[in-house]
Amino acid sequence: MRYEELTIEGRNAVLEAFRSGKTIDKLFVQDGCKDGPIQSITREARKHDTIISYVPRERLDQMSETGKHQGVIAYAAAYEYASVDDILEAAREKGEPPFIFLLDGIEDPHNLGAIIRTANLAGAHGVIIPKHRASGLTATVARTSAGALNYTPVAKVTNLANTIEDLKKQGLWFVCADMGGELMYRLNLKGPIGLVIGNEGSGVGKLVREKCDMIASIPMKGDIDSLNASVAAGVLAYEIVRQRLG
Amino acid sequence: MRYEELTIEGRNAVLEAFRSGKTIDKLFVQDGCKDGPIQSITREARKHDTIISYVPRERLDQMSETGKHQGVIAYAAAYEYASVDDILEAAREKGEPPFIFLLDGIEDPHNLGAIIRTANLAGAHGVIIPKHRASGLTATVARTSAGALNYTPVAKVTNLANTIEDLKKQGLWFVCADMGGELMYRLNLKGPIGLVIGNEGSGVGKLVREKCDMIASIPMKGDIDSLNASVAAGVLAYEIVRQRLG
Repeated sequence: MRYEELTIEGRNAVLEAFRSGKTIDKLFVQDGCKDGPIQSITREARKHDTIISYVPRERLDQMSETGKHQGVIAYAAAYEYASVDDILEAAREKGEPPFIFLLDGIEDPHNLGAIIRTANLAGAHGVIIPKHRASGLTATVARTSAGALNYTPVAKVTNLANTIEDLKKQGLWFVCADMGGELMYRLNLKGPIGLVIGNEGSGVGKLVREKCDMIASIPMKGDIDSLNASVAAGVLAYEIVRQRLG
Repeated sequence: MRYEELTIEGRNAVLEAFRSGKTIDKLFVQDGCKDGPIQSITREARKHDTIISYVPRERLDQMSETGKHQGVIAYAAAYEYASVDDILEAAREKGEPPFIFLLDGIEDPHNLGAIIRTANLAGAHGVIIPKHRASGLTATVARTSAGALNYTPVAKVTNLANTIEDLKKQGLWFVCADMGGELMYRLNLKGPIGLVIGNEGSGVGKLVREKCDMIASIPMKGDIDSLNASVAAGVLAYEIVRQRLG
């Protein structure tokens, strides 16, 4: 596996990256820059639904590695994203009921990498992450996934709640990890399932939580609040594995 | 919780730290330094079984934050270590069969912190780590433990295999996580138990593995080799929790 440099700087390089179909996670444009080339770039960004941040020139100077950003810096994904359909197709190919991880705003790339690693080993068919307020597939994620990113497809969606609705129509059930739910051992987690893991600090968002069919709680016998997000994902994923084996 | 500065520099400061009973994880001494004060320090270090590294002056200069190391720098533990007896006593006080984590060389402080967090929430009575080739209780460990370090005692031992022998005499059984063992669901993990987790890269050491009564395997359905160490610890710990609840 190779971990490429993922920062793309300068007008031509960024425009070329968009046009070649490279997945750009985030685009940073200098405040007040509105000339022709910059407009071409932001037009491409909007076409690809890329998040654009307008920042002061000083910020770009700090971010720049070459010193020649020309008012624009893009962060590209280390790996190509899959589509949700690719994930369902992977399940079909294996003749298994779909088992998908949905991550509602995992921000720490180490956690994201560890969760993709877990998804691979627990036999999940893919991972769905939101476009906003979440870590993308950076080089750190690739490294901490220990190679799993080469096998387990990751899709990025604009609205996780809508994606859940769509997948429900395909027969999936959704379980989210949260406090105050049913003890996970008592839930039936056998069929086609989406496992929803919340943000490290704030947990699963209200809208996404409401879409879930079940709320699973991990037994907590200690003094503190919650497990690390990637550990919680692992514990729940393996309860699903246990039930599917049984 | 406060995260103090843990580097202690200079001859008087280091000697005082030893004499006041502060736990020093590691001592760095300048190559060739053999005068009286340095000999007093290394004598204290040997008395407390602290690891001493002899390094070139340039290395100390790089490590130094004050620029006044006088040939000696010590790393102190962020938190005080408990003894193995403290851990057994914690189990007795709760009237529960002991449940102890033994970490055979976890090197990444983020993993160590996450595992201590898991140990707390899974209701384990303590964590035992080896003195050599392993992360100590640094500020990073404290932070990633999310407060668990305030509640869950951590003991540091010179020889993990000997500690396992001693604890067997107290009635504990030992299970280690490794490939090629019995599927964890098929093992009886209910009684007084020590859960052994291996190093991130090399797993459980041969000597320690031989002392274990059971080898537990997590089902692996994917394409890569192994789970992240803190995720594996979480999955196994919660299999123990599940069996104890049932």
